[in-house]
Amino acid sequence: MINKLKKIAKNCTCLTSVEDIYAYCHDTSPEPDVNMLADIVILPNNVEDIQKIVKFCNENRIAVIARGAGTCHTGGCRVKRKPCIILHLSKLNKIIKIDKENLIAKVQPNVVLGDFQKQVEDMGLFFPPDPSNLKVSTIGGAISLNSGGPRTFKYGNTKDYVINLKVVLPNGEIMETSSDIAKDVTGYNLTQLFVGSEGTLGIIVEATLKLIVKPEQRLVTLAYFDKLEHATSAVNAIINNKMTPSTVDLLDKNTIETIEKYNPTGLLTNFDGALLIEIDGNKETIKKEQEDLSNLLKENNAKEIISAKNNEENEKIWRARRSAFGSVAKLKPDVITEDVVVPRDKIVPLVEGIKRICKNNNVTVCIMGHVADGNIHPNFALDLEKEKDIFNKTKDELFELALSLGGTLSGEHGIGYEKKKYLNKALDQNAYKYMEKIKILFDPNNIMNPDKMF
Amino acid sequence: MINKLKKIAKNCTCLTSVEDIYAYCHDTSPEPDVNMLADIVILPNNVEDIQKIVKFCNENRIAVIARGAGTCHTGGCRVKRKPCIILHLSKLNKIIKIDKENLIAKVQPNVVLGDFQKQVEDMGLFFPPDPSNLKVSTIGGAISLNSGGPRTFKYGNTKDYVINLKVVLPNGEIMETSSDIAKDVTGYNLTQLFVGSEGTLGIIVEATLKLIVKPEQRLVTLAYFDKLEHATSAVNAIINNKMTPSTVDLLDKNTIETIEKYNPTGLLTNFDGALLIEIDGNKETIKKEQEDLSNLLKENNAKEIISAKNNEENEKIWRARRSAFGSVAKLKPDVITEDVVVPRDKIVPLVEGIKRICKNNNVTVCIMGHVADGNIHPNFALDLEKEKDIFNKTKDELFELALSLGGTLSGEHGIGYEKKKYLNKALDQNAYKYMEKIKILFDPNNIMNPDKMF
Repeated sequence: MINKLKKIAKNCTCLTSVEDIYAYCHDTSPEPDVNMLADIVILPNNVEDIQKIVKFCNENRIAVIARGAGTCHTGGCRVKRKPCIILHLSKLNKIIKIDKENLIAKVQPNVVLGDFQKQVEDMGLFFPPDPSNLKVSTIGGAISLNSGGPRTFKYGNTKDYVINLKVVLPNGEIMETSSDIAKDVTGYNLTQLFVGSEGTLGIIVEATLKLIVKPEQRLVTLAYFDKLEHATSAVNAIINNKMTPSTVDLLDKNTIETIEKYNPTGLLTNFDGALLIEIDGNKETIKKEQEDLSNLLKENNAKEIISAKNNEENEKIWRARRSAFGSVAKLKPDVITEDVVVPRDKIVPLVEGIKRICKNNNVTVCIMGHVADGNIHPNFALDLEKEKDIFNKTKDELFELALSLGGTLSGEHGIGYEKKKYLNKALDQNAYKYMEKIKILFDPNNIMNPDKMF
Repeated sequence: MINKLKKIAKNCTCLTSVEDIYAYCHDTSPEPDVNMLADIVILPNNVEDIQKIVKFCNENRIAVIARGAGTCHTGGCRVKRKPCIILHLSKLNKIIKIDKENLIAKVQPNVVLGDFQKQVEDMGLFFPPDPSNLKVSTIGGAISLNSGGPRTFKYGNTKDYVINLKVVLPNGEIMETSSDIAKDVTGYNLTQLFVGSEGTLGIIVEATLKLIVKPEQRLVTLAYFDKLEHATSAVNAIINNKMTPSTVDLLDKNTIETIEKYNPTGLLTNFDGALLIEIDGNKETIKKEQEDLSNLLKENNAKEIISAKNNEENEKIWRARRSAFGSVAKLKPDVITEDVVVPRDKIVPLVEGIKRICKNNNVTVCIMGHVADGNIHPNFALDLEKEKDIFNKTKDELFELALSLGGTLSGEHGIGYEKKKYLNKALDQNAYKYMEKIKILFDPNNIMNPDKMF
């Protein structure tokens, strides 16, 4: 069967050695299963190749996993069923157009998010989604996972910038979900059904994205607090004072200490936590806004405030924030980033609960997150070879806690394989049932990234 | 059967006289069919009533049309199949909560949009969707139609503010589409499948809405142009200068003259068109932004510029804009507002094409629209009793024109009954096919607002 497939994909690069295949069968999540490898990795040249391959796979019940950069945290491109092929979309990497007049862009799925943002910003426009892996991660991945990043509080997730998708359906046919117009209420919203569907309904081969006007300037403020609840109260004060920062990120004491230990940038380690707040806007008015913010933070128990004055000083603070993951990774052989979200007024019980769970299980945790969204990332440092059961227990308790606080499983990383066992608990039973039915409606032979999400 | 239904709905107000029923069987679109009336109008007291009634209707193949204020323009609540009941949701009119800390609100469907906005704004928060009928139209209607309004260029449509829906499914069961958290990527996006679905999949009985921070001040600028293309070039200049006004509305010469004829407010009638531009932001900086805007408009061929200095002056300009529909209505016995959308760089050919079509068909048209979104509303004034065929021809040509310019059927009014015959032409054939399949998936007996959209 795979030989037949090779014939169909005869113009495509095909990888068949175990070493090659292995490299494409996992993402950044722990525990890639070395015994479950795809039968072949195919790099299609174009949409027609994908159509032919997918059609054959559908007729022959071969699982199809489309992947981009594999920066996903949930085992989203892990092989769980055989026969299985990986479609690596690296050759579909063109920015088809950036249309300034209509504020849209059309891209192929494997365009790197950071490259795209740069081109867009060079034209004075703005595409806000900024997952922390944007230097390597692809737009197709960001759409499939509905990625977010620090700026979602002001600007929303990837979903808010996707207006049309061209997809290859499991039967090999093409479907365009909508039109290339941002304001379009013609029929059901199929676009948003595919955004965040993690490759389980079809393969995104082209996307029309909404662009907005680029803010003239950004300024970062770093505020330290003695108590976590002071930090969260300060966030409420900011909102009550009619400010909408683009970013309100929280770093807990452990995170700050770990950054300073391995990648020192001069963060202050003698506080319970810090808020990294970025505002953006007009050059003429942003300094005054930063002053107002600083005064407000002081009134709300901030003990130390660092206000960046220009892009260079912004960058210094962001560098510290971005080195958090790498720093935590030095603590133990493995670091696993989780992703939970709760109503914002439940941040304190969530963070305290995570600390309690980790203390009980003797797991090191560094907590950070996009606190204005209620979106928290605990970074667990451990040795999975020895502590796999502990990690699983910790993870179960984490999601149980988030759900008990009225929260849910993911703000931006998705469900994939790692969280599918919790999905049923997180969703309304009818919602779960109808999601399964929608999966069957589009993919009756269950070939599209099977065993993910459901 | 209807008698049985009355028993099931025994605690509800039931309207059965022809006069009463007639009043509930049409919206603002032309030609309510006096021969197609619902068998009964029921005003359920609560969600349980709706569940029982819908379940019975499903078992007995009775069509169910849920309606709010009936301000829709597309025949969305018109009866096309019998037996049929109207569920008037007027008793589900409570604002359940406005949660300032989490920036969400929970409402029942029949809350009047304008009342809700006022309550939200009194708390310093903001719910942007502002269809022009917001003083009477309901949130359930706005969600079902994915309504927009002048502010969508900056703030998006209703869909961008809906994070969770409780719906009664055709089988009478309840489904919650998501969680009450704005940033949630847990499973497929069922919420957005129901937004804009026009009552064809289920009945929305509760909605969780996202709120944002209220801008401190708004200022309106009115700019007159000798040529329409100067107005559209000015819009590009605004965007190129990194401004994002909340509103950029266009009024054509006919619209201005008609307003001045019937509701004079001092608009200048000797220009080809005007842009109504509203900016919003901080008190301290907005005046400077308005000055910058004014200078930019001058540089871009604006011949007269009126800059409102305060809310009262804003209101004077808005009053003129809002009286447009009422003024056009005085020209002929009927006025029909249509709704098309094109890429913004196709506004000039669209408007010129509409004028040409109307000239050829001898139909009076006043054109206005949310020009930054590419969303144009031609208001046709005619006597439908005598000119029905001419209107139908004009409408056919309008949608053909919009589609030929890469546009589509609706930016904010939806499809309903009036536009369903064009839907197949506007959508990708597979998209149309899968929308039909989704309709069947949720509503296999086709009882939910049948003959609408598809």
